[in-house]
Amino acid sequence: MRIALLAAALSTSLLMAAHAQEAQQPPKPKTAQEIINAAPSSAWRDLDPANTLYMELASGRVIIELAPNFAPKHVANILTMAKGGFWDGLNIYRSQDNFVVQFGDPDGEEAGKAKPYPAGTQTHLPAEFTRSDKGVKFDRLPDVDGWAPQVGFVDGFPVGRNPKTGKLWMAHCYGTLGAGRNNAPDSSIGAELYVVTGQSPRALDHQLTVVGRVVQGMELLSVIPRGPAPMGFYTDPSLRTPIVSIKLASDVPEAQRTPLQLLRTDSQAFIDATEARRNRKDDFYTEPPGHIDLCNVTFPVRARP
Amino acid sequence: MRIALLAAALSTSLLMAAHAQEAQQPPKPKTAQEIINAAPSSAWRDLDPANTLYMELASGRVIIELAPNFAPKHVANILTMAKGGFWDGLNIYRSQDNFVVQFGDPDGEEAGKAKPYPAGTQTHLPAEFTRSDKGVKFDRLPDVDGWAPQVGFVDGFPVGRNPKTGKLWMAHCYGTLGAGRNNAPDSSIGAELYVVTGQSPRALDHQLTVVGRVVQGMELLSVIPRGPAPMGFYTDPSLRTPIVSIKLASDVPEAQRTPLQLLRTDSQAFIDATEARRNRKDDFYTEPPGHIDLCNVTFPVRARP
Repeated sequence: MRIALLAAALSTSLLMAAHAQEAQQPPKPKTAQEIINAAPSSAWRDLDPANTLYMELASGRVIIELAPNFAPKHVANILTMAKGGFWDGLNIYRSQDNFVVQFGDPDGEEAGKAKPYPAGTQTHLPAEFTRSDKGVKFDRLPDVDGWAPQVGFVDGFPVGRNPKTGKLWMAHCYGTLGAGRNNAPDSSIGAELYVVTGQSPRALDHQLTVVGRVVQGMELLSVIPRGPAPMGFYTDPSLRTPIVSIKLASDVPEAQRTPLQLLRTDSQAFIDATEARRNRKDDFYTEPPGHIDLCNVTFPVRARP
Repeated sequence: MRIALLAAALSTSLLMAAHAQEAQQPPKPKTAQEIINAAPSSAWRDLDPANTLYMELASGRVIIELAPNFAPKHVANILTMAKGGFWDGLNIYRSQDNFVVQFGDPDGEEAGKAKPYPAGTQTHLPAEFTRSDKGVKFDRLPDVDGWAPQVGFVDGFPVGRNPKTGKLWMAHCYGTLGAGRNNAPDSSIGAELYVVTGQSPRALDHQLTVVGRVVQGMELLSVIPRGPAPMGFYTDPSLRTPIVSIKLASDVPEAQRTPLQLLRTDSQAFIDATEARRNRKDDFYTEPPGHIDLCNVTFPVRARP
C-alpha cells in the first residue's frame, strides 16, 4: 500500500514536472517546409501562361517565368521569337562548369548560316540592365550583401537595388535567365540566352539584360555535360543538346500545360520560411547561421491544387 | 606639292596626336588570366601526393586536396580507409540539385549489409567543425561577408573566421568536401562524404567537419543526374554512379599520377588576379563590381611544368 501510494505520488509528481516543463519550453519551431505546407492559398500566385516559356528537351520540360517589368523590350522580342518557333531545333551550345548554359543559334553571327528571325523580331534593342525603383514594391531582405547596397524581391524575382541611383536590377542567382551580348551593351536582342547553373555570378549584375528565371526543371539544365572547349563551348556540334522547342505556355493546349503556383515573396509564409532557414533551429543544426544570402533563398513552387 | 606637304604635315600631326594619347592613357589593365600566366614559379605550389585523393569514375579522375590541419582525425581516418580500398566499388548514392553529391556505403548504417571498415579505421571521432586561429597564417579577403565576421584563406582553402571566439573553419564553397553526419555532432568518421555542387551552402559552415576540396574534376561530379527521391537520393540502386576507386595519390604509380600545381593564395599573383576579378576593367564590363565573394574566388590549377 505504501509502495503503491509512493508510486502514485511519484508518478503524479513526474507528470506535474512534465507538464511544468511543457509549459516552460517554447513549442518546437516550425521548419521552413512546415511553414510552406501550412501557407494559405492566398500566399500562392498562379504562374501566368502568357508570361511563361516551356523549353522542351528530350529529358523533360524547363519552365521559365519572364520578367517584362524589368526587360520589356527583350521580353516582347522573346515572345515574338517563341511564337515564331525560332529556337525549335536549335540547341544548347555551351555548358561551362559552375557558371552558365547558353542556347540559341550557334551560327547566329554568320550571315550565311544564321537561322532567320521570325517576322516582327527586332534586330536591335537598347540595353535593359536596370530599371527605376520609382513606385516599385520592393520587399527588402534585411541581410547584408557585398554586391548591392540593398537586396530583396520584386515581382517574385531576386533583385539588387541602389537607393542612391534609384536603380533596381535582377540578380544573377542560380536559375537566372539572361540575354547574351557582345561587347557593346546594346548588342543583345534575346535570341541567345543563358541560364546560371553555378555559384551566383553576381559580378554580371547590371552588366547584362536579365529576362527571367527558371522556376522548375533546373536539374535538366545543370547536368548538361560541360563543353570541352574554352568557356564550355562544344566545337563538336554532336555534343550540343538539342532544343525540341521553346513555346509560350499560353500557346500550348491547356491539357499539356504544367499549372504551377509560386509562393508570393511578400507573403508571411515566405518571410517566415526564409527566417526559418536564416535561423535554423532543429536537431541537426548546432548553431543557427543567423544570415541568408539572396541567392540562397528558395522560391517554393507547387502544382496548382 | 602643296597637297603632298599638307598630307605629310597632317600625317605627322596625327602621329603626334596618337603618341600624346598613348602617353596620357594608362596601359590596359591585365586580366586575371594574364596575371596568372605571368606568375613566377615561386607563386605555385605542388599538390602533395601524400595529401591528395584520386577518385576514379568511369568518366574520369576527380582530384581532392585534403585539409589535415583543419580535420586531423577525420583526414587520418580517410587515409586509412583509402589505403584499405574502402570506397572501391561503392557509389555516389545522392545528387541533390544545387546542393551536394554524396558518396560512400549506402548500406553503411545497416549492420548486416554494411561494408566492413578496413583495419585501423576509427569508428568514432570527435567533431572537427572549427580549429583555433592561434598562430595560423590567415590571408584575409577585404570583402564583406554575411556568414562570417572575416573570410580569407588558410593553407590555400577558403575559410571563415571569428576573431572574437578565435575560431577558423573551412567554408562550404563549390567543391568543398565534407564528412556527412547524423544529428549527433560527433557522428561522422569520414566514411560518408559529400561534395558541394551548388550555390555555396554556407549555412552548413561550422556545422559539419570539412575535410578538403576538389581541385580538379568538379565537372564530373556536378553533372551527375539528380536523384529522384527527396534530397536527391536514388531509391533505384542502378541509378547510382559507381566509384571505381578512391586512392591516395602517393599509392598510385608515379607514371599514373596527375602532377598539379596550385597558385599560392598568399602570392602576389593570386592577390592581383582576385583584384582583377573584383574590379574588372575590360571591354565587356560597363561597371566593375567592386566586390568579390569568398566562394566566387577561383583557385588556379595547372599541370606541373
